[in-house]
Amino acid sequence: MQAQIITIGDELLIGQVVDTNSAFMAEQLNSYGIELNEIVSVHDNAEQIISALEDALGRVDVVLLTGGLGPTNDDITKLTLCRFFSTRLVESEEVKKHISELYAHRPEVFNRLTATQWQVPENALILPNSVGSAPLMVWTIEKDGRKQWVCSMPGVPYEMEIAMREQILPYLSRQMGAQAHIVHRTVIVYGIPESKLALQIADWEKALPKTMHLAYLPKDGIVRLRLSAYSGVTDEEVDAQIQKLIPLLGDSVLATQDLPLEVLVGAELKRRGQTISTAESCTGGKLAVLLNRHAGSSEFYKGSVVAYANEVKENVLGVREQTLSEYGAVSEQTVREMAQGVKQLLQTDYAIATSGIAGPSGGTEQKPVGTVWIAVATPQKTEAQCFHFGKLRDKNTDRATLAALVKLLKILQSE
Amino acid sequence: MQAQIITIGDELLIGQVVDTNSAFMAEQLNSYGIELNEIVSVHDNAEQIISALEDALGRVDVVLLTGGLGPTNDDITKLTLCRFFSTRLVESEEVKKHISELYAHRPEVFNRLTATQWQVPENALILPNSVGSAPLMVWTIEKDGRKQWVCSMPGVPYEMEIAMREQILPYLSRQMGAQAHIVHRTVIVYGIPESKLALQIADWEKALPKTMHLAYLPKDGIVRLRLSAYSGVTDEEVDAQIQKLIPLLGDSVLATQDLPLEVLVGAELKRRGQTISTAESCTGGKLAVLLNRHAGSSEFYKGSVVAYANEVKENVLGVREQTLSEYGAVSEQTVREMAQGVKQLLQTDYAIATSGIAGPSGGTEQKPVGTVWIAVATPQKTEAQCFHFGKLRDKNTDRATLAALVKLLKILQSE
Repeated sequence: MQAQIITIGDELLIGQVVDTNSAFMAEQLNSYGIELNEIVSVHDNAEQIISALEDALGRVDVVLLTGGLGPTNDDITKLTLCRFFSTRLVESEEVKKHISELYAHRPEVFNRLTATQWQVPENALILPNSVGSAPLMVWTIEKDGRKQWVCSMPGVPYEMEIAMREQILPYLSRQMGAQAHIVHRTVIVYGIPESKLALQIADWEKALPKTMHLAYLPKDGIVRLRLSAYSGVTDEEVDAQIQKLIPLLGDSVLATQDLPLEVLVGAELKRRGQTISTAESCTGGKLAVLLNRHAGSSEFYKGSVVAYANEVKENVLGVREQTLSEYGAVSEQTVREMAQGVKQLLQTDYAIATSGIAGPSGGTEQKPVGTVWIAVATPQKTEAQCFHFGKLRDKNTDRATLAALVKLLKILQSE
Repeated sequence: MQAQIITIGDELLIGQVVDTNSAFMAEQLNSYGIELNEIVSVHDNAEQIISALEDALGRVDVVLLTGGLGPTNDDITKLTLCRFFSTRLVESEEVKKHISELYAHRPEVFNRLTATQWQVPENALILPNSVGSAPLMVWTIEKDGRKQWVCSMPGVPYEMEIAMREQILPYLSRQMGAQAHIVHRTVIVYGIPESKLALQIADWEKALPKTMHLAYLPKDGIVRLRLSAYSGVTDEEVDAQIQKLIPLLGDSVLATQDLPLEVLVGAELKRRGQTISTAESCTGGKLAVLLNRHAGSSEFYKGSVVAYANEVKENVLGVREQTLSEYGAVSEQTVREMAQGVKQLLQTDYAIATSGIAGPSGGTEQKPVGTVWIAVATPQKTEAQCFHFGKLRDKNTDRATLAALVKLLKILQSE
C-alpha cells in the first residue's frame, strides 16, 4: 500500500513555517507498513490542490492532506474538497456539540466564523478531532474493485498528530487488513566520516540481498546507518545482517536502536539510579532542554546552570578567578572547574560542562570560532576534550551538544 | 518568475529527517522576488527524480534540487542528472583542489569515495561549495527564446544554506535581471483567537484590493497576520493598508516586524543597556536557548538556572522551604521567589521564572497538567501570572516559553 502527503498552505511556500507535519506522518505511515511515495506542498489555491490530488490518486492508495481547515478566508481546503467530490456542506450536530464543549470555558472563541467549523461535506466520513474545531474528513473512492482513501486533517501540528494517532491510522489500518511487512533497523555510528565508513563496510553492503536497502543518514558528526526491507523479508533476516555489520564498526557503534542520544543517556542513568546536571556556556541550555524534554526525566536530571557571562561561571559555579584570567573561559581548566562546580552545587553523580567560541565573532588565532571544550565529571573523575566544529554558530552549538552527549554515553557504557 | 523545489532522500519519506531546507529556500527565493510554486519530496530513485523534474520544468522557470549528492551508494542525484541532461562525468581539477584544501587537516576523510566528488557532469556549470565536498551544479535550458534553470545542491542544511546565499541566488539574480516586486508585511498579534481576530478585522479584509492577500498564521497562541502583494503594488500601498489595520487590533499588537520574539526582547534590552537572566523549571532551558541563540546575545543575556528539582530551587535560587511546602513548586509564591532569586544571584536587571506541570503525569484537580506560573522581575517589581496550556508536554513548554517572552516584551514596551 502506497501513500502520498499533500501539505497545504501559503506559509509553507514563503518559508514562514517549516513543514514538520510530513516527517511525523511519514514515520507513522511507515510504522503501519504504508510506504510513502511523495510529499507535495502547495499553496492555498483550489486549482493547485485539485491538480495535486488528481496526480496523487493516479499513483497511490492513500492521500493525506493537511492544512487549510481554519475558520478564516484563506483556508479553502474544505470547499475545494467539496468541489472535487461534488458535494455540499451540511450542518453536523455532532461536531457542533463537540465544539461547544471544547470551548465551554472560552466563550470568546465562539462566533460566526467558528460556526463554519460544524459545516461538513455531506458525502464525507467525519471523524472526531478531540483537540480542535476542524473536523477530520475521509472519502473512500471505489473503482474497478480498487479502493482509495483521501483524508483531510488540520495543519496545526499537535491537532494533526493526535488525528493521525487516534483516528486516521486506526481507520486506515482497519480498511487495509493485513499488509506487507516493512522492517527498519538503525545503527548509530560516531567518529567515522561517511565516506570512510562506506569503504569500511563496502564488502558487507555489496553482499546485501537485493530485498534490503542501506541508507547513510549523517548529522552533526553522527551517521545513522539504516537498513530497510520492504517486502517478504523477516525481522530475523534483517537482524542477521545487522549482526554481521556490528563487528565491522568496532567501537564506533553508539547504539543499535534508533533513539535520540538523550534517551539512551537517560535510560542508562535511570537504570543505575544516578543523576546528572549541566553547566553550559556555548551550548546555552541546549543540553538542559534535551535532558529534560522527555517525560520521566526528573528521575535522573536535576538541573543546569547556563553560565553565559564569566561572572556567572565564577560566582555561581565557583570557577576560580585565576583560572579564567590565566587560561580564559574557553579552556580545559575552566571547563573542568565548571563540571565539578555544577556537580557539587546541584549534588549530582555526573555533570557535563561546555565552553566554546560559538561565533560568528570572538575567535582568535589560538582559539578560532568553533573551538569547544567539553568536560564530563563522573563519581570518580573528570575528563575533558577539545573539539573544533567550524564557523557556524547554530551548527557549532548543536554539534557541541551532541558531542557532549556522545562523550557521556561512551563513559557510561565503558563503566 | 516561478520556482519549484525538489528535495531528494529516502530519509525524508520515512520521517527520519524533517525537511527544513525547503522553508529556508522558500524564504530566500521570496526575498529575491521569485515565487515558489510547489515543494516536492521524492525518494533516492532515478525514475521518481526524473518524473518530478519533468513535471517541474513543465510549470516553472527555476528548479532547485537538494540532496542525494553524498559519496555513498544511496546518493544517485548526480548520475540521474547526467542521464537527464545526456552527459557524462569528467574530473574537475578545480573541485579536486578545493576538496584537498577542505580536508587538509583531516586526511582520514580522504579516500576512494571522496574522489567521486570531483567527478562532475561535463555540460553543467559548476559553482563552488565553500564548506563541503559536493560541487553545486547548474544547467541552463534554452528553448523557443525561454530560459529555464536546474540547480542541484547538497541536502546537508548548512551546506545548502551557504550554497543558496553565496552562489545560487546571486547567480539566478544575475540571470533574471529585474523582476516583479513582491511585498510582505507581518503584524504579530497576541491574545486573540484566530476566528475572533478574523471577525474583528473582517471589514478591513473585505475592502483589501484584489492585488493583496491576507494570511493568518497561528502558532502557540500568537497569530502572525501576513499581508502579501505579488505584482505591480508598491511598498507604500501595502504599508498604507497596514496603517489602517493596526488601530483595529488595539493593544494586541506585539510587533509590526516578522522577527522572533527573543530578537525583539534582545533589541529592547540592548537599546537600554540592561540585562536578563532566567530561572526555569517546566521550560527546562528553552528560554535560555532562545535568549542566547543569536549572535551578540552576551550584551544582554547573562545566564540561567534550570531548577528542575525542588532542591535546586531551594539551594541555588533561594526559594524558601516553607514556600515550597506550603504552596508547592507550581505556585505564584514559588515563581516569584525564583525570579527574584535568579535576578539577585546573576545580578541582572530583569529575570523570568517559570514553574508548571508539563505532563503527561503530575497533574492534580487543583493544578491540572498544563498549569504554568510565570513571573517577570523588573528593576521595580515582580509580576506573576497563571496560564493553562493543555495536556501535551512539548506543546506546554513551548507555549510557556512564548508566553513568558510575550509577558516580558509587553512589560518592556509599557515602561
